[in-house]
Amino acid sequence: MEFPISYKVEQIDDRLDRLIPKADLLSEAIRYALLGPGKRIRPLLVLASAETFGVNPDLALDPACAIEMVHAFSLIHDDLPCMDDDDFRRGRKSLHRAFPESIALLAGDALLSEAFLVLARAKIGEVAKVRLIEVLGSRIGKEGMIGGQALDMHPNGSDLKSVLEMQNKKTGYLLSAALEFGPILAGKETPWQEEMQSIGLHLGLAYQIRDDLEDAEQKSDENKPTALSLLGESKARKLLQESLGKIDAKLKNLPSGGAPISALLSPMFK
Amino acid sequence: MEFPISYKVEQIDDRLDRLIPKADLLSEAIRYALLGPGKRIRPLLVLASAETFGVNPDLALDPACAIEMVHAFSLIHDDLPCMDDDDFRRGRKSLHRAFPESIALLAGDALLSEAFLVLARAKIGEVAKVRLIEVLGSRIGKEGMIGGQALDMHPNGSDLKSVLEMQNKKTGYLLSAALEFGPILAGKETPWQEEMQSIGLHLGLAYQIRDDLEDAEQKSDENKPTALSLLGESKARKLLQESLGKIDAKLKNLPSGGAPISALLSPMFK
Repeated sequence: MEFPISYKVEQIDDRLDRLIPKADLLSEAIRYALLGPGKRIRPLLVLASAETFGVNPDLALDPACAIEMVHAFSLIHDDLPCMDDDDFRRGRKSLHRAFPESIALLAGDALLSEAFLVLARAKIGEVAKVRLIEVLGSRIGKEGMIGGQALDMHPNGSDLKSVLEMQNKKTGYLLSAALEFGPILAGKETPWQEEMQSIGLHLGLAYQIRDDLEDAEQKSDENKPTALSLLGESKARKLLQESLGKIDAKLKNLPSGGAPISALLSPMFK
Repeated sequence: MEFPISYKVEQIDDRLDRLIPKADLLSEAIRYALLGPGKRIRPLLVLASAETFGVNPDLALDPACAIEMVHAFSLIHDDLPCMDDDDFRRGRKSLHRAFPESIALLAGDALLSEAFLVLARAKIGEVAKVRLIEVLGSRIGKEGMIGGQALDMHPNGSDLKSVLEMQNKKTGYLLSAALEFGPILAGKETPWQEEMQSIGLHLGLAYQIRDDLEDAEQKSDENKPTALSLLGESKARKLLQESLGKIDAKLKNLPSGGAPISALLSPMFK
């Protein structure tokens, strides 16, 4: 099954462009961060999940954009001086280096708020809107992505369990929300929501270990404990393969064998 | 008509306390900012607006808490070093002085996200939930409160029109949202939504001029242009009285003469 990914990326970027029109300094900053280079994995996951459950992609586009807006918010705030203090992001100046730091902070805030507004205004039924908003809010809030960012800055512990909890929250939960959006939009949350969440969390772990392995090759001077540093390379590679195996098995049980999601993910884990 | 304000403040604080239980460093930071001293004007406005339109106060409590969470978020981020760089807030250390700056940033982010989650989970119908979320999102986003914070840091101009636009957005729009929540909860958005918004914006202006006058008495060294500095004291006092007159006239036209809202506001403008 062919999944027209390049077309979908354009479609996502066109819609993001229209959701945040040029107006003032704040909107310019938002656009710099939101429309810059990026693979748009998370909104593509929303579209692929929607396709898996037979949802018209036009109805999934705004929810996909909401997820990308939240992702962009998290990167902007992660880069700020009081967080990771990164001057560059994806080969360009980070937002607070390209714009005043106050405007970068507020651009992140605005993206978070606008994401919920986009969901509230999406052309879908009220029940689905409320569930999308509830799932997004619970995956990214104090017990989700933002909670994970807090644990990354001030960890509870440096053991494997603490590191995996932090990474689950920081990376896995937003991927989970993206995948959960498909069955919600299809009105098929029962019985699929938990399964999609599980795929999302395994995917977060797989990304993280893959990134750890790549960072190790580049001899990153990062001193934070990671799954790789705690497990050693051999066990970490085994955990990565186990996660990918579980994702694969779970996808096969989805309607149409989860083909749109497989087509999106398989090139990334070659 | 008696409005039991002291009882309502306790009720709001009890509910906020349960919405953000003690769990970890992030939740402690959120609680420091959210449950500290404050007049709870905005959630009281939600409850008073709901009462004006005959809504059961139990149904308005969570929407009231959502508004207070957004207000607390805005104060935390306003105090950060890249914004107003305030070390104190309401006689205590500001959040980024009492906790690490990264945790303060993320506590603000979490409050913003949790506010939408609280609305999505409120015990009200789906249509009302979506409208509360849409109104909140549009009043606080890039064209609302957060947009106003951006204009405060990087103004478009120093003339009266620019200053009033910034203050409307930064202060008036969240007050507007609080007042708009009543008719939404009552299913009476038509014909009352615009009138409530107008009261909210006049109220924001009145607060702002009153604060300007108080700051001038304390010989604040603030150099930013204000309605007071641009108009002079006599004209500013006249504008304040005009705003209060308009609020009063508009309240009288509401169901039951807007008595709960009048009872809440009148002691503040004696």
